[in-house]
Parts: sequence; structure tokens; C-alpha cells
Amino acid sequence: MKKISILGVTGSIGTQALDILRKDEENFKLVAVSSHSSVNKLLDIVDEFNPSYAVLTERNAYLKFKDHCSNKNLDTKILFGIDGLNTIVALPDIDMVLTSVVGMVGLVPTIKAIESGKDIALANKETLVVGGELVTKLAKKNKVKIFPVDSEHSAIFQCIKGNNFQDIEKLYLTASGGPFRGRTREQLFNVTVKEALNHPSWRMGKKLTIDSATLMNKGLEVIEAHFLFDMPYEKIKVVIHPESIVHSMVEYNDGSIMAQLSSTDMRLPIQYALNYAKRREALVNRLDFYNMKNLSFEKPDIDTFKPLKLAYDAGKIGGTMPAILNCANEAAVELFLFNKIKFLDISYILEECMNKFTCSNTYTIEDLLHIEIKVKKYVKDKFSK
Amino acid sequence: MKKISILGVTGSIGTQALDILRKDEENFKLVAVSSHSSVNKLLDIVDEFNPSYAVLTERNAYLKFKDHCSNKNLDTKILFGIDGLNTIVALPDIDMVLTSVVGMVGLVPTIKAIESGKDIALANKETLVVGGELVTKLAKKNKVKIFPVDSEHSAIFQCIKGNNFQDIEKLYLTASGGPFRGRTREQLFNVTVKEALNHPSWRMGKKLTIDSATLMNKGLEVIEAHFLFDMPYEKIKVVIHPESIVHSMVEYNDGSIMAQLSSTDMRLPIQYALNYAKRREALVNRLDFYNMKNLSFEKPDIDTFKPLKLAYDAGKIGGTMPAILNCANEAAVELFLFNKIKFLDISYILEECMNKFTCSNTYTIEDLLHIEIKVKKYVKDKFSK
Repeated sequence: MKKISILGVTGSIGTQALDILRKDEENFKLVAVSSHSSVNKLLDIVDEFNPSYAVLTERNAYLKFKDHCSNKNLDTKILFGIDGLNTIVALPDIDMVLTSVVGMVGLVPTIKAIESGKDIALANKETLVVGGELVTKLAKKNKVKIFPVDSEHSAIFQCIKGNNFQDIEKLYLTASGGPFRGRTREQLFNVTVKEALNHPSWRMGKKLTIDSATLMNKGLEVIEAHFLFDMPYEKIKVVIHPESIVHSMVEYNDGSIMAQLSSTDMRLPIQYALNYAKRREALVNRLDFYNMKNLSFEKPDIDTFKPLKLAYDAGKIGGTMPAILNCANEAAVELFLFNKIKFLDISYILEECMNKFTCSNTYTIEDLLHIEIKVKKYVKDKFSK
Repeated sequence: MKKISILGVTGSIGTQALDILRKDEENFKLVAVSSHSSVNKLLDIVDEFNPSYAVLTERNAYLKFKDHCSNKNLDTKILFGIDGLNTIVALPDIDMVLTSVVGMVGLVPTIKAIESGKDIALANKETLVVGGELVTKLAKKNKVKIFPVDSEHSAIFQCIKGNNFQDIEKLYLTASGGPFRGRTREQLFNVTVKEALNHPSWRMGKKLTIDSATLMNKGLEVIEAHFLFDMPYEKIKVVIHPESIVHSMVEYNDGSIMAQLSSTDMRLPIQYALNYAKRREALVNRLDFYNMKNLSFEKPDIDTFKPLKLAYDAGKIGGTMPAILNCANEAAVELFLFNKIKFLDISYILEECMNKFTCSNTYTIEDLLHIEIKVKKYVKDKFSK
């Protein structure tokens, strides 16, 4: 029986993880959960799974949730904020933490979890983008395993298994290309939030969907792959694959390429990460090669979808530059979702922040948190009109 | 340094294997070679590689070869026939035998090699089709490893590595579909040998190319996969994939599919088998996903390309039925290549032989050799007009 904490249990990954737990009650016990502010969803989850701890990180939601629970006779302890997160990732009786919060907020709890020796199912890519060096060092030191939950990194993970790491020639991260694939820069001037949220193949949270439309998501994944697989940026390629059937590939030195394919359903990589190294009975639809559309591959257009190029640049510069890029992106996407800026402004803001803020090669967690505040404030103040 | 014998060194697989040895002299020593009747090619090979033994299995060629060598001062011993093959697979100082002869003639030497404890790089699929049960049992008993050289089985081998065997849900053998893919039965009435030899993606020997045109090759591979991976026929599927980029796939119980891709160059699977479990520097062209045609998949048309269906039938019946089918096919293809029968007659002959000859569930090598003689004689006598 694996005992787990789920951070961000009410989000897209979190709720799909619950689906896996529901169908595999013998193997999992949900010990603790967190949500930012989804009071009603979290109430339902607490009712159903009866976890020992529930955390809310938004103050009003926390108070409302506490209020709701006051006249119930719950076993569940209700905690607040980042301290609550730090508590539930370090509980003595859990084996694994699924970090499915979105954004840099996942960094500190993930570090706490690693320091407590808990294995990580990592769905929060910002953790590695921002603190990759610190996090991977810490994981090594604490003998903690990090299992990727992103479909691309899960695919690569599966394609590497059974092979020699030093035989790897190249990683191919596939990308659907998002809703605006094939458009020119000019055609992106006036795209709306609604259009950007209309992803052709994956259902995801809003932030991630916008990141997919700009290709920033793929850029973040490149940086994530760099740290997760200890791979130089020159060996990480992005290939547009609109059908989203091939989830990523690994090329070996002999010219052989291993690829992982499946239907577009995040429950597969979540299930693989939670159960590693066992494969469990499929929850996802199986692929039908007798009725399958053709699979196509093309080069990404990094002039139009510049955030992908900026991510490579930031990754290669290293140090705190990926953190600067990520924080600028989190702030810019928020502004875009609130109709404060246009779609192409996102890329403009990223570039401006990378130019404006000084990158440093050595840093602590505190430095990263400081960068977060500084960069986000700058973007908000300057562009939120 | 791995010391190897190559059976069928002058054929398509054999000469490509030499290419690998040439580029990796530090790791391989070619100790012995055989050819059916290619005197000149074998002379060149002996000159270049200076093996300890050379075998010819066709009498006139053997005599001619001996004659050619009589006035050279060669270190190479020249042997004749099946006894010669049986000698060079059992030499005390070899580690591995590459069996790249075509047809059932590979069976006995492969068994001898296994009995002598030599690892096998198996490019002779008939060995497993005809004697699968005997061969796999013997390999287990002698702790001999059989490394597949067929691109499909090599792909499956690579897709299984690092996974649990019991998690396998299905094997997908891909097939280019051959030169007649998409044609109706009527459109196959009058196809010529030349048309049948015009394979769209692979360069292979004649027998194999005709087998690809009838889909019999894929049928033999299904039976080969059954024995090689100990997999029931219900779990082995064939999928037409005209681009020949995906060489085969394995589906796991969780719905994840691992696929192996590369350019269409047999040197990759040969290299993988010879070097297992190491991957060596690529001899083949690397795939370029930025300039790749779309990959398509479709269901095979087993009404038109009936040999594939017959192979499944023969495999499921088991016993000596795959041997009967294979021998009928070897004889029929020879007749077709000599313009004695029409293309569709091949499938007709297979069916007739499967109906005519009694299948037996227990058998010895001698029984198999007896079947070979009986079935081939029957086909030749009846259809060679």
C-alpha cells in the first residue's frame, strides 16, 4: 500500500490522479491533499477519501472551508498556506508526493518533500525549471526518486528504461503545436483568450493551455528535460507532432529511436509515475492502429513562437535565468488571461525580463523566491494597465 | 573480441554484417564463413578477412572454389556441405553464429550451434517457423541466447527491454505491405516476377522479396515472434505501415506502446544483435523528423494476401503445420521465380499443402527434414509444368 500526498488535488492532474486511486484502492492510500481555493471540490474529495490532512493556500477559501467543516465530524485536519503544504509533504507515514500545483509555488514544498526522503511524482514542471540544479542535487543526496508526470517526460523515461544512459544521442520532445500551429506572427496579433484556450488535443488547466499556445510550455519542458535527464540542451530537440500520439522519443547512438505512444490521456503518465516500476491495468483508451490518422512531424517555427527559443536561451545561460523567464511567463500569462495584454505581448515581456534582470550563477532557494517577487511585480506594474 | 561464424555470408544480411565487422575490427574476429554457391564473392571475402574456415554447400561451387584456392597459399580450410556448416557453428573458439542463410537449410546448423553453446544472431526465420518448439527448448536448456536480426523482431526485442514480460498486452509487427499493397485479388492475376521483386522500401534477397509481396514474410514473422517471445497468436497483430519507419511495437497492459523507429537499413538490427547489449556508433542514416513523410497505419487485407492468414492458421494448429506451410512456400516461391506458376498460385499451393499433409503434434528434427523433402517434392511434381 503506497501512501501519498497530493498537492493541487483539485486541478486537472490532481483529479485524474484521484481517478487512478479510486480504481486501485488496494494499492494506494490518500493521506493528504491540498488545493489553492477550490472549496467545494475539496469538500467532496475529503468526503470521499477521508484524508488525514487537507490544506488550502488561499486565505478566504481556507476560512470558508473550515467553516463548512465545523459542523461535520471530520477526521481530517485542516491546515493553511505554504506551511500546510510543507507539513503534508513531510508526514512520517507517506511514501510519495504528487506535486500537481501549477507554477513556482510548487518549489518549496517539493524541496521539503525531498528533504524528508519522499519520492516525487512531479507534475509541477516549474520546480525543475526554476530550481533544477538545487532540486536534482538534493534528490541525489537524499536518494529520492523523481518520476515525471508530464506525458513527454514520462515517454522519455519509458524510452530510456533498459538502455544505457551514455548511449543516448538525442531526446525528441514532441509538441502538438497548440491551437495556433501554422499561423504567422501577423495572424497572432489579435487572437483572443478563448481562441488560445481551445487546445486541439489535450484538456489541461488554463495556464498550461496558454503555455501550449505560445510553445512556452515546450520551452519549459526542454529545461525540465535538461535537469531530469541530465542532458545538454544541444541534445534536446523539439518536434511538432499535431496528432499527439507519439509522446516523445529517444534517439540512440546507433541510430535507433525508441518512441512511446498512447492516446492523449494524462492518466497514463500519472499512473506510470505513481506505480513505477509496475504497469497497471489500462484506464486509458487503447490506440487502434487499424483506424488511425496519419502521424506527422515538422520543425517548430521559433520565429513565430519565440518563447520556445527564449527557453533554450535561458536554459543555456543557466543560473537564475530560467527562473527569471518562468516568473515573467507566469505573470504575463495571468495578464493575458485577464485581457490586460495581447497574445504576442507574452513573448515581448519574456524577452524584456531576460534583458532587464541580472542572472546569477549561484543562488539559494531564497534568491529564487526573491526573483519571483521582483519579476512578477515588475511585469504587473509595467504591463497591467 | 567476439569471434563469430557467419552462415550465408555472401547474401544480403551476410554482406551487411561484413560491413559492420569492417568498421569495428577491434571488437570482432570473423572465424568462419559459408556460402551456397557464390564462388567469387566468397573468394573476395576470404581474401579480405582471412577466416579459418570457408564452406560451400553447392557441390560444383565447392569444387570450383577449391580449385581457385589451390594455387594460393591460404590459411583458410575449405569445407563442403551441411557437414561443413555443422563444423563451423561448433568451433571451440567462436562465441556467436550469425545464421543468415535463407530457408529451412538453416535449421540443422542452428541446432548444432545451440548444442555447442553458441549464442545465435538469427536472421534465418525459417529455423523458428519450422522448428520453433525444439529450438527454443534447446536454447533454454543450453543457456544460449537468440538475438533476432529481422528488423521487426529486433524492434520488439528493443521495445521489451526494461519492461516486465508479463505486462505485455500485444505485439504489433509492422509490414510495408510490399509492392502490391492496395491491389485487389483480380489485380494480382498477371503480376510478373519483376513487379513482385520491386519492393518499395527494403532491398533484400529474392525469396524474401517475394514473401513480402505475398505477405507470407509477415506470416512467417508472426510464427517467429510466437516462438521468440513466447507469445500466443492472439496477442500478435500485423499492421501495414508503408513507410517502413516504425519497425514494430509492443503494447503494454496500461495502454502504453513502445515503438522502435529507424531508417530502413538492416545494418542496424544486425549491429544490435551482434553487439547486444551494447549499442555501437551508427552505420545507418539517422531519421530526420523535420523532413519526414507522414506515417500511416492500416489493417492488412488478408483476403487478398491470404498467406498471412494461412500462417496464423498454421501457427495456431501448431505441431508440424508451420513446417508444412514453410516448405510449401519455399517450393512455390522457387516455382514462381522460375515463371512456372502465377503469383496467386503461391497462396493456392500453400492452402493445398496444408489440407493435404497431416500435421503431427510431436516431432523430431528428422521428421521435419522428412516433411521438407515430401512437401517440396509434391509441389514440384504437381505444379512444375
